[in-house]
Amino acid sequence: MKDRYPAVDAFRGGEKVIRIVGHRGARGLIPENTMIGFKTAVSMGIHLLEFDVVLCADGFPVITHNHAIHAPTFRIPETDCFVTEEPKVLDLNWSELQSFEIGRLDAHSQYGKRFPDQLQLDGIKVPKLADLLSYAEHLGDQKIYLMLEIKSDPAHVKDAEFRANLVAKVIAEVRTFGLSEQILLHSFDWQILEECKKQAPDMPISFLTQLTENPSDVGEDSSLAVGPHVENVEAIPEMVHERGGSLWCPNVCDATAESIERAKQLGLVTAVWTANENDEIDKMIEIGVDAIVTDYPGRVQQRLMIHGFKWST
Amino acid sequence: MKDRYPAVDAFRGGEKVIRIVGHRGARGLIPENTMIGFKTAVSMGIHLLEFDVVLCADGFPVITHNHAIHAPTFRIPETDCFVTEEPKVLDLNWSELQSFEIGRLDAHSQYGKRFPDQLQLDGIKVPKLADLLSYAEHLGDQKIYLMLEIKSDPAHVKDAEFRANLVAKVIAEVRTFGLSEQILLHSFDWQILEECKKQAPDMPISFLTQLTENPSDVGEDSSLAVGPHVENVEAIPEMVHERGGSLWCPNVCDATAESIERAKQLGLVTAVWTANENDEIDKMIEIGVDAIVTDYPGRVQQRLMIHGFKWST
Repeated sequence: MKDRYPAVDAFRGGEKVIRIVGHRGARGLIPENTMIGFKTAVSMGIHLLEFDVVLCADGFPVITHNHAIHAPTFRIPETDCFVTEEPKVLDLNWSELQSFEIGRLDAHSQYGKRFPDQLQLDGIKVPKLADLLSYAEHLGDQKIYLMLEIKSDPAHVKDAEFRANLVAKVIAEVRTFGLSEQILLHSFDWQILEECKKQAPDMPISFLTQLTENPSDVGEDSSLAVGPHVENVEAIPEMVHERGGSLWCPNVCDATAESIERAKQLGLVTAVWTANENDEIDKMIEIGVDAIVTDYPGRVQQRLMIHGFKWST
Repeated sequence: MKDRYPAVDAFRGGEKVIRIVGHRGARGLIPENTMIGFKTAVSMGIHLLEFDVVLCADGFPVITHNHAIHAPTFRIPETDCFVTEEPKVLDLNWSELQSFEIGRLDAHSQYGKRFPDQLQLDGIKVPKLADLLSYAEHLGDQKIYLMLEIKSDPAHVKDAEFRANLVAKVIAEVRTFGLSEQILLHSFDWQILEECKKQAPDMPISFLTQLTENPSDVGEDSSLAVGPHVENVEAIPEMVHERGGSLWCPNVCDATAESIERAKQLGLVTAVWTANENDEIDKMIEIGVDAIVTDYPGRVQQRLMIHGFKWST
């Protein structure tokens, strides 16, 4: 089956094939949402990358997960200390943002303890969305596909103008680099996705869902405030389909065999996030998802091999 | 303190500084003893690399750990199956060696289970020593230092001519690429190191020791057959010093605070191998080694950070 969007096909699994998506690069191994993280993941053979964008005060998209500076990963180089205040990215201009280094984890923090194997690097800064798109453009034949998560600011979730501007800025950059065939526009906020559909019908939209807080996500912005309130996971595939979605991306705790099967019947590609533990990965293989978003791509590869699966065709 | 050998200084720790050496590249994350493994480790900021060389039938050194083809990592691309026979590398010419791929682990094997996070790659072949040396030569300012382990074949351990030829071949290549200031000649076989000293007094020698089999090394050639039989670890630093060694590299199970202290008094640099578990790493930090050889460089970095140590100056 050929999708009308080439990017969607890149995430579609198949007979004994499940795709692997590097989460924020490969967060288990290399600092998240950094150019070195993305480049290292690509050099390791990972061609599907997930990452997060928000706007900075200068009005362009930058790659970072939380709406605010993230204390366990943002460090002040002069003092070599992690930040103690967490101003919003939207309130910081580019040069202020660039004053932080993000190549290390505070190993004493709850968040840092989640990634005990992550490399610690110096001189690493928050990238612009344009940095990653420019890199992707110049990879040539070694095509990568980007699961571009547009973060929805809970403080602006009801502001249609804010939303339209955010989406316009992201889409303009994707077009500048000629990457509309390598992009999924991905969000928890379905109003943002509706806006994407309106502004860029030539790009596929990808619906993130999470039913309840996942206790293992300690140290991260929650997405529950901006997503739709759905209690029955089985109802979601139909909702995504009705809204013109190409992908449905449930949290690994929520995905069920029935809901994944229903999504498939509707022609949706399913990509679960974030599967890092063997038992979770094995369960996702068993229920037949198309793709697994993970902080540990090698771990998912080995689980797939054990179950007789491949990740490429 | 400045050593007469620049390479030795690169491995020397200091006040609250312990160096990190990537074991076979970074075996926990990327296929061992491969060019992609070495390059990825360097791109991750790891500038001290350990690896293993043996001769192939064409008489030049190749990079691989065991004397024989290693069933859990050598695969026949045509059948996509791991090998079932393990011929000796010394009996295979270059084109025969290149018929195998080594970018995956047999996840069902005991050896494979030791590295559940290692990336699985296609098209990866055994490199020549010359491939790594050429890469190191062209890195320019981003200097890397190589802990070049010369594997001693138990079948030829008493053969002085075999030994002289093996050492001559390795040294000739190091000289060809002008890397004598970035190399440690490293071995369990002290007769090989004696030969190195004779043939290349301008390069430092590094003494590996292991008192007893380490049960966690399942799936690898043992080194006990080729090393000296020493029962008292405290006696080793003196022995290494008498033989003109620059480094002493005990197994992580053998190193004691007293033996490391004695080695320091004698001016030896100490690099323990292979510390992968938090408790082992913490113990090595506590007893004050100069360097830790590890399959998980990020993990050692985080343990060092927790203890208030750095890995570079």
